Amino acid sequence: MKGRPLSDKPIRVTVWGENRHEKLEEQVAKIYPDGMHTTIAEGIVANLGDRVRVRTATLDDPEHGLTEEILADTDVLTWWGHAAHAEVADEVVERVHRHVLSGLGLVVLHSGHWSKIFGKLMGTSCTLRWRSAHDRELVWTVNPTHPIARGIPHPMIIEEDEMYGEFFDIPAPDELVFISSFSGGEVFRSGCTFRRGHGKIFYFKPGDQDYPVYHHEGVRKVISNAVQWCVTDQPTRSLPTLLRYETNDFYRGHGYQGPLENQA
Amino acid sequence: MKGRPLSDKPIRVTVWGENRHEKLEEQVAKIYPDGMHTTIAEGIVANLGDRVRVRTATLDDPEHGLTEEILADTDVLTWWGHAAHAEVADEVVERVHRHVLSGLGLVVLHSGHWSKIFGKLMGTSCTLRWRSAHDRELVWTVNPTHPIARGIPHPMIIEEDEMYGEFFDIPAPDELVFISSFSGGEVFRSGCTFRRGHGKIFYFKPGDQDYPVYHHEGVRKVISNAVQWCVTDQPTRSLPTLLRYETNDFYRGHGYQGPLENQA
Amino acid sequence: MKGRPLSDKPIRVTVWGENRHEKLEEQVAKIYPDGMHTTIAEGIVANLGDRVRVRTATLDDPEHGLTEEILADTDVLTWWGHAAHAEVADEVVERVHRHVLSGLGLVVLHSGHWSKIFGKLMGTSCTLRWRSAHDRELVWTVNPTHPIARGIPHPMIIEEDEMYGEFFDIPAPDELVFISSFSGGEVFRSGCTFRRGHGKIFYFKPGDQDYPVYHHEGVRKVISNAVQWCVTDQPTRSLPTLLRYETNDFYRGHGYQGPLENQA
Amino acid sequence: MKGRPLSDKPIRVTVWGENRHEKLEEQVAKIYPDGMHTTIAEGIVANLGDRVRVRTATLDDPEHGLTEEILADTDVLTWWGHAAHAEVADEVVERVHRHVLSGLGLVVLHSGHWSKIFGKLMGTSCTLRWRSAHDRELVWTVNPTHPIARGIPHPMIIEEDEMYGEFFDIPAPDELVFISSFSGGEVFRSGCTFRRGHGKIFYFKPGDQDYPVYHHEGVRKVISNAVQWCVTDQPTRSLPTLLRYETNDFYRGHGYQGPLENQA
Repeated sequence: MKGRPLSDKPIRVTVWGENRHEKLEEQVAKIYPDGMHTTIAEGIVANLGDRVRVRTATLDDPEHGLTEEILADTDVLTWWGHAAHAEVADEVVERVHRHVLSGLGLVVLHSGHWSKIFGKLMGTSCTLRWRSAHDRELVWTVNPTHPIARGIPHPMIIEEDEMYGEFFDIPAPDELVFISSFSGGEVFRSGCTFRRGHGKIFYFKPGDQDYPVYHHEGVRKVISNAVQWCVTDQPTRSLPTLLRYETNDFYRGHGYQGPLENQA
Repeated sequence: MKGRPLSDKPIRVTVWGENRHEKLEEQVAKIYPDGMHTTIAEGIVANLGDRVRVRTATLDDPEHGLTEEILADTDVLTWWGHAAHAEVADEVVERVHRHVLSGLGLVVLHSGHWSKIFGKLMGTSCTLRWRSAHDRELVWTVNPTHPIARGIPHPMIIEEDEMYGEFFDIPAPDELVFISSFSGGEVFRSGCTFRRGHGKIFYFKPGDQDYPVYHHEGVRKVISNAVQWCVTDQPTRSLPTLLRYETNDFYRGHGYQGPLENQA
Repeated sequence: MKGRPLSDKPIRVTVWGENRHEKLEEQVAKIYPDGMHTTIAEGIVANLGDRVRVRTATLDDPEHGLTEEILADTDVLTWWGHAAHAEVADEVVERVHRHVLSGLGLVVLHSGHWSKIFGKLMGTSCTLRWRSAHDRELVWTVNPTHPIARGIPHPMIIEEDEMYGEFFDIPAPDELVFISSFSGGEVFRSGCTFRRGHGKIFYFKPGDQDYPVYHHEGVRKVISNAVQWCVTDQPTRSLPTLLRYETNDFYRGHGYQGPLENQA
Repeated sequence: MKGRPLSDKPIRVTVWGENRHEKLEEQVAKIYPDGMHTTIAEGIVANLGDRVRVRTATLDDPEHGLTEEILADTDVLTWWGHAAHAEVADEVVERVHRHVLSGLGLVVLHSGHWSKIFGKLMGTSCTLRWRSAHDRELVWTVNPTHPIARGIPHPMIIEEDEMYGEFFDIPAPDELVFISSFSGGEVFRSGCTFRRGHGKIFYFKPGDQDYPVYHHEGVRKVISNAVQWCVTDQPTRSLPTLLRYETNDFYRGHGYQGPLENQA
């Protein structure tokens, strides 16, 4: 957005990576010797420079690296997970969920579609059809004025990636930004925005661990655009709350004591 | 919809009611001597006659009256709860959730906005502002071609109801059908559709237990329209599933064995 | 929709065809010896039988066969045009536009995307990328509970059709029902609903004159589903109108006399 | 959006005003002695300072002040008109329309709902119900993470303004940001975004000429936020165009020669 004040502080980004395939599978380690999260983080810095302050966190960190303190110090969280979705502690999922509804931005990448946090925010199964068979993926922009599509080729060509196909069981996105096609003929709503509570969410499909997708310049640019878009416009992080308001008092709500007690 | 075959079977409706206020509070029992669920069910029958087959179920029934058998025999479930949301067993919530994603229609009424099942389907806090102070509610249609608005006065006047006001923390609805205003000046997105998985959902705001709202002819008509709209167009109930599809085989997916095993 | 009364009258459908390619191009005449409009009409009758009453009209009829009388006697109009968009009289376009805003359903087919009436209703250029080169088209359902997708294979395979690709310059559809991919790798939002005024509109992509697309069973079924969906739920046809309403008089608006006179 | 480069140029804003009521009606001239457009322009400068470069144009300027040169030098156009919509030359409307589809941002204010340009972009009648009777207007935010709602009180109170009520005959907005209620009980979708072609559009309801609404600090802030939001993310202004693309040549489209010639 043009015309912003010059005093803006850097966006605080936490790149979360499951970091298991890289340890267990040689071919993934070759593509991402320092872990996928490191490559993703580098792509954001390469695009946004000192407009961001990026850190990484992984599944095996204490509390998966997503403590209350870290989340409170994060404007936008990016999420890549796959083999170990089930190992993410429910308590951490609750915490991230609460932060998203309170204003944390969330960029969900590729197989993160089946993460606990994405499912919890969407309310659906988030299932799809898939095939890892070296399909070429073409990413087409269907919302050319969206900030997340800024500077992205139309189409953007990814030489090889996993196929994800419809039906993708998500709520109809607030904004559909990208649709992908695959060599095999499948299509996928591959760039979708969602607003939930005070938080902004972007799902972006590319990025199977078996292909060097996060080294792709355009993919890195989309993620960087999404990081910028996902910053909430709320001045402070606050969870939407149920409050009673008296007639003609629009600004001072008071707490809820339970439906039956309240009326007694 | 005009032009439907004559052979259509009746819609199987289950009206679920918490049925606690009616037992504990005299003023509610006076308005709804047989329980709110009974009045809601009667309103549907009054409007749809033999085009529906309606039963009721309540919190205190075994498994809250929502067994696998009952749900499998239900096309559309309506849900009113308030004081005892927390008493609804998580297992039953999971079951209803699975049925909705598989094609069960769901009409969520009034304070059902804070039920476990609605929150799970929306992914948000579903909080709002409220006041029970005899506000007059005006229900305005903003989507006049929607089947749920068919035959509803514009505005529809409800002499007294609880005030629910924005911000209502829900995902942007797929279709916004009604907006309500209240004597106090608040507004509320009071009629909203959502599609989740293979299921269709309608949230409708009117209906606090302290006012005779479910005796209101227009309110009963909206609920009846919603029951018709919520019937899924899927021929059989099926849960969206993650499946692998080989290249050029579009119709026969096979099961998923887990990301790491699968690639080994 | 289940549970409809048995007394419903047949849907009155007018299938409009430009009917020029069939006269001027031998290969088109071979596929559609009685005109494309006739084949489209037959497909609707084959699916809906006596639930519809179908007539056809073409460009060369007086007033293009779209007189005030015909339109007033039509519930849903389907539109196929291509070479001769410019020959459609502006007066007829205005008339159809007024009827759509008043409640006429409209199914716009294939190259109808560039018709005057579709452009006037959308407000955009309705341009796209294209290629007529025997691409295979796969039509994927992304909204499986939508009535227009009822009974349609996923994907639906059309052996040969013209390619239409994104960016398709339309407003974001109210509901996205289908996305197509083509052999060449392009994608297209190929099934889109729009509500405008009191009218319901469906755009459906398949159907280039050079291929036998309107003989395709699935395509015919989609069009038939769309005809049913496009019937408005307004009881009578009425144009939205600017009216003044006095305080506390919600139901009796009065006419507008112009802003300056009015205030005098 | 945080994290933007510091080198951004000022947004070029043209504030268009009909400027007739101010000349013909004493009470309007008292509120807006230099014209409504001047007050609107001042509000934008007051909020955005040197992040904008604002000029004004009025109906009685040659070509209404909206020449090709001016439009090409404008990032965002704001539009207020009322009594003299009909006097706006169709040629100028076409020109503005072409610029919007090519990337010009457009903020339509209050009675601009019935301007030729808004109607042309929406495709609907854009009618509503109204009453100028000193209603209090409350503007409620229903999309709290939207940049246009940033810093706006919830609700925002406008002591007196004209009532606009539903049904407002517009396409369902891409994003609904504000809903207003009025003393009389009516509601209105008062803040709506639309994307058309490469252009971004915001409609904002407040601002009848008989009340000092454009002196209201919150209203001025909304307009200023909208000016920032409406800047397109396209690097250069370009009209969406129909182009043919050969198989495997995704980037070089060629012109269209007409359907029949083309195939000959």
